[in-house]
Amino acid sequence: MTPVVPAAVEAARGLVDPVMREAVARLDPITARVAAYHLGWADAAGQPVSHGGKALRPALAVLSARAARGGADVGAVVGAAVELVHAFSLLHDDIMDGDRVRRHRPAAWTVFGRSEAILAGDALLALAGELLVEPGTPGFVDAARALGRTTRGLIAGQALDLEFERRDDVTLEECLRMSARKTGDLLACACSIGATAVAGPGPLVSALAAFGMEAGVAFQLADDLLGIWGSPEATGKPVLSDLRARKKTLPVVAALTSGTAAGERLARLLALPGPLPEPDLRDAARLVEEAGGRAWAETEAKHRLDAAGLHLDTAGMPADVRAEFLDIVLYLTGRDR
Amino acid sequence: MTPVVPAAVEAARGLVDPVMREAVARLDPITARVAAYHLGWADAAGQPVSHGGKALRPALAVLSARAARGGADVGAVVGAAVELVHAFSLLHDDIMDGDRVRRHRPAAWTVFGRSEAILAGDALLALAGELLVEPGTPGFVDAARALGRTTRGLIAGQALDLEFERRDDVTLEECLRMSARKTGDLLACACSIGATAVAGPGPLVSALAAFGMEAGVAFQLADDLLGIWGSPEATGKPVLSDLRARKKTLPVVAALTSGTAAGERLARLLALPGPLPEPDLRDAARLVEEAGGRAWAETEAKHRLDAAGLHLDTAGMPADVRAEFLDIVLYLTGRDR
Repeated sequence: MTPVVPAAVEAARGLVDPVMREAVARLDPITARVAAYHLGWADAAGQPVSHGGKALRPALAVLSARAARGGADVGAVVGAAVELVHAFSLLHDDIMDGDRVRRHRPAAWTVFGRSEAILAGDALLALAGELLVEPGTPGFVDAARALGRTTRGLIAGQALDLEFERRDDVTLEECLRMSARKTGDLLACACSIGATAVAGPGPLVSALAAFGMEAGVAFQLADDLLGIWGSPEATGKPVLSDLRARKKTLPVVAALTSGTAAGERLARLLALPGPLPEPDLRDAARLVEEAGGRAWAETEAKHRLDAAGLHLDTAGMPADVRAEFLDIVLYLTGRDR
Repeated sequence: MTPVVPAAVEAARGLVDPVMREAVARLDPITARVAAYHLGWADAAGQPVSHGGKALRPALAVLSARAARGGADVGAVVGAAVELVHAFSLLHDDIMDGDRVRRHRPAAWTVFGRSEAILAGDALLALAGELLVEPGTPGFVDAARALGRTTRGLIAGQALDLEFERRDDVTLEECLRMSARKTGDLLACACSIGATAVAGPGPLVSALAAFGMEAGVAFQLADDLLGIWGSPEATGKPVLSDLRARKKTLPVVAALTSGTAAGERLARLLALPGPLPEPDLRDAARLVEEAGGRAWAETEAKHRLDAAGLHLDTAGMPADVRAEFLDIVLYLTGRDR
C-alpha cells in the first residue's frame, strides 16, 4: 500500500518552489543547470521536467512557522533554505558514497561530472545561507545561525558514516549517534526553524526541535529498513543496494552486534572480498532478520515516534498544525509499508 | 629578491587566527582534523605545526574595517570569514583540479581522501557564514549577504575554469571574466567587507570593492606568470605545473589568441596527447613569451594596479590605512619578482 502524500506537502511545495527557483536563478548558467537537474526541475539537456523530491522537509518548515503564528512568507523562505541544504547534502553524499542513482534517475555527478556536482552542492549551501540573511530580522538571523549549526551536524554525521565504512567494530550506540547527526539534525531544524524565524517562544522552538529529532531518527530507521526490504519503486534505488554497498545501517549494526549465530554469519558474509552476488545479498537480508535487526529497528522506530508525539504535545500550537505535523511524520516513517 | 611580508599581514594573522581556531573547534573531530591540516595548523597526524598561508585576505579585510573606522573586533571576524571561504575554495579546487600539492605540502585530499576533503570544505564554508551572522547587527547581516554573493562568484569562476579545460577556443575576454569571478570577487569582498560590517558609507564600500576587484585580477595575472616562470619555492608547486596541467591561464590564452606563428606552435604543442615531457614544457613557456603572452600579462597587471590605485584615491580613508592597503597589494602582485 502506498500512503497518500499529505495535502500539506503539496501546499508547501507550491509555496517554496518559487523561492528556490529564484535562488537557483542567481547562479551562473553552468552551475544552475546541474542544480536544476539535481532538484528534479530539468533533464540532463536542461529541458523542464518534474522529478522533484517529496518536499517533506519544506512542509515541516512551513508548519513550524505556522506553529508560532508566522505567515506563509516566512514559511516559504525557511522551507526553501532547509530544502537547499538537504539538496546540497544529497548531492555531495552521492559523490562520496559513489551512489549512481537518486530518485529513479542517474545521480547528478554521473551526468555532469564529479567536479561540477561538487560545485553545485557548494552553490546550494551558499544560497540557503543567503535566503536566511536577506530578510534581516533578528528572527531570521537566529534561523541562519540554526541552519549553520545544522549543517555542521550533517557534516559530522557523514564524516562518521565514512569512518564506519572502514571499521568493523561499530556499536549500535555509535550508529544511532550518527543518525541523529545525519538525519535528526536536519529534521529538528526543519521542524523548528520557522518558529525561530518569527522569534517564537523558546520553549516552543525547543519542543519542535526535539520532536523533529525523534522523528528524524524514526525516519532513518524506516529508511534503513526500506534500503533492505523496500521495493526499488519506493526507494528510487536498485533492490538491496544498501547491503550491496555494505552500508552500516541501523538494522545491520543491530544484527551484527546481536551476539547471535545469525549475526556472526552476517559478519562473515559482509567481510567477503569483492562484490557480493545477488543470492548472497538475499542471504544477508535474511540473516539481518534472523539476528533480530529488523524487529529491533521496527520497535525502535515506534518508540521514537511515540517520543516525538510527546514532544509535540508539550509544544502547544493550533490543533490543525499539530495534526499536519503528525500526518507528515507518519507519512515520512511509513511510506510503502 | 623576496619582498618582505608587510607588517599589517602579520598583525592581521594574530587578530584573525583565534577566531578561526574557535570556529574550527566547533566541528566534529574528524572534519576538524582535515581542516586543521589544510589550514596549516597541524600535520597529517594532528600534531601542531605552522604551515599557514600568508593571510593576505584577512589583512585586507581588517584594513577594510579600519577604513570605515571600525574596531579590531570587527576586523577579526570578517577577516576570519573571508579566510575560511578562501580555504574552502582551495580545498575543493584542489580536488577538482587534481592538484596534489598545496603550500609545499601534499594537498589535503591526498592525505585524508577526497570525501573527507569535500566535507571539510563544506564545513569551512558553513563556518564562514556562521561567524558573520553571530554578531547580529545590520552591518554584519549585510556582510553575510556580500559573502554569499562572493561565494557564488567563486563558484561561477571555477565552473568556467572547468569548462575552459574542455574547450580550445577560449577568448582572452572570457578568460579575464573568469579571473574576475575566481580571484577578483573574493579580493573585492576582502577589501570592502569590514566597511560593510560597520555599516560604512556606500561610496566607500563601492570604491573599496572596485579597488579589490582590480587588485584581484592583477594578482591573478601575477600568479599566472609565476605558474610558468616562478620558482617552486615561490609557488609551493612543482616548476611549470600550470603548463603541465595545460591550464588556460591568462598569459597562455593571450599567446594562443595572439595570431602569431609562436601562438600557433604553442596550440599544436598543447594539443599533443599524453603528458608533456619536460623539454616540451620548457618549449611551451618559450612560445608563450615569443607570442607576447608574458609581455601582455605584465602590462595588463600594471594597468590593473594603476586602476586599483585610482579607486583607492576616491575611497577616502585614514592615510595609514591607505598606505597599508597599497603595501599589501604590491606585495600580493610582486612576490618573487
